[in-house]
Amino acid sequence: MSDFQKQLRENAKAVTDLLDKLLPIDDEKPESKLIEAMRYASLSSGKRIRPFLVVSSAEIFGVASQSSLRAAAAIEMVHCYSLVHDDLPAMDDDDLRRGQPTCHIKYDEATAILAGDALLTKAFEVIAEEATHADPQVRANLVLGLAKAIGEEGMVGGQMLDLLAEQRELDMPEITRLQRMKTGMLIGISCEAGAILGKSSEQNRHALHAYAHDLGLAFQIVDDLLDVEGTAEEVGKQTGKDADAGKATFVSLLGQERARDQADMLAQQAIQHLDLFKEQADPLRELAGFVVERRT
Amino acid sequence: MSDFQKQLRENAKAVTDLLDKLLPIDDEKPESKLIEAMRYASLSSGKRIRPFLVVSSAEIFGVASQSSLRAAAAIEMVHCYSLVHDDLPAMDDDDLRRGQPTCHIKYDEATAILAGDALLTKAFEVIAEEATHADPQVRANLVLGLAKAIGEEGMVGGQMLDLLAEQRELDMPEITRLQRMKTGMLIGISCEAGAILGKSSEQNRHALHAYAHDLGLAFQIVDDLLDVEGTAEEVGKQTGKDADAGKATFVSLLGQERARDQADMLAQQAIQHLDLFKEQADPLRELAGFVVERRT
Repeated sequence: MSDFQKQLRENAKAVTDLLDKLLPIDDEKPESKLIEAMRYASLSSGKRIRPFLVVSSAEIFGVASQSSLRAAAAIEMVHCYSLVHDDLPAMDDDDLRRGQPTCHIKYDEATAILAGDALLTKAFEVIAEEATHADPQVRANLVLGLAKAIGEEGMVGGQMLDLLAEQRELDMPEITRLQRMKTGMLIGISCEAGAILGKSSEQNRHALHAYAHDLGLAFQIVDDLLDVEGTAEEVGKQTGKDADAGKATFVSLLGQERARDQADMLAQQAIQHLDLFKEQADPLRELAGFVVERRT
Repeated sequence: MSDFQKQLRENAKAVTDLLDKLLPIDDEKPESKLIEAMRYASLSSGKRIRPFLVVSSAEIFGVASQSSLRAAAAIEMVHCYSLVHDDLPAMDDDDLRRGQPTCHIKYDEATAILAGDALLTKAFEVIAEEATHADPQVRANLVLGLAKAIGEEGMVGGQMLDLLAEQRELDMPEITRLQRMKTGMLIGISCEAGAILGKSSEQNRHALHAYAHDLGLAFQIVDDLLDVEGTAEEVGKQTGKDADAGKATFVSLLGQERARDQADMLAQQAIQHLDLFKEQADPLRELAGFVVERRT
């Protein structure tokens, strides 16, 4: 395992530990099933790439890790809520996620809907608490940035586009816009969170935004490639679903080889946006390489 | 129509107008179906009691109405999201709401889930924006108060309890706790929002909290009474559902007469909590009377 992979794993563990603390369970309470489902959806071992982006971007500006880890945990809650809702029978109808039954299979549909709702809500609670940052302006900015990234003009809008894509084959600009909204904007605020927490300049925030933009697309192209190339066992979720649903993807439009080239090019371009930062941004540089090389 | 009812109606119109502005639709965009569904779920004519509580409590402390109306619109978005998700087939499976098809009947399940998610997200966006209050501490406090009221220990937890109540008949303390979480806490933050916006004392905030506590229970008891006494046409949604589902309610446990007495007593008690405020709190006093006298 490379040093980078160790770093990624350590950060993932720190975020999981914090999520565990933020979602305490009290078996005495009758609603504990809801909290169990929230924990099931968020404590299982993901790669925790978004939390890594938050913590790594915050480190560039010397932000204390107890501060950035809370923002990271909040953003991971949002990511997990989106997976729970996207997996629902009325949406993508997935039974398997990270090699485990999805939340509505493990529990039931109603509990999964509520667990998603509660994780989304909890994310805003965690950010708004004083422990996240002493300056309320920073907390309000984080709430605002996150909400814009994941609402009707961001992640949720992107999921709507994805559902509509089953009815009509999208072209390249349409798919790029869809993925930018569906996955790119949450990756974007994950990177910008560091600059917000560090009260950094607009220039720095823009550089991180540009990095995230390219990284997000590269990430999605590799996801599409894994969906074609990988088996469910390797990837931890059902593969080949987009092709089965007749959905256009980066890979169906570009072909595997050009898609791979495009992902590599975007990762390189992402790294170039970090030129104004010194070695403090090395984790973000390494992540760009990791994202295009990953097999799961 | 009484002066109070006119006031309630004028405030409802102001909130609806603001919601209309906050949810602009662009038919050119392919995801406009999502925004249509958000508008469908939030612009139809509700009584807008929660927004009235926000604006009326804010008026006690001289808060500018452009400020309190934004908080009111955000809280109404949360209320509307909760109705959309509660009506889903996997939850209460309701086809009719305010005399109209519910969101998933009008559109489809996936769109309804996403419209709810986006309304919840938008509520936090609206609160976090500078236009809601110049002081970021106030905005962060509002975000925090709202998130706590509607998460796993509040509204969503209460809905979980409500689903579990189909399996086992609850007793009076359990139903009171369920309703306190499911509807009481959102009513609570609606009243406290005024004190938060007005940077008022803890004492005032507690008085409004106590008022909201009693008002919320009275409101719910009357809801249960209307469910038994009213027709779908009068009430605007299916009635008799709780009895059909074998769920215990305030009315099934207390009987209609004692339930009615209890609601009246709670409304009186709610009004007494306002004794430390002068005539500025009259709209809240009148609302308590309205809540127990309403027929829909």
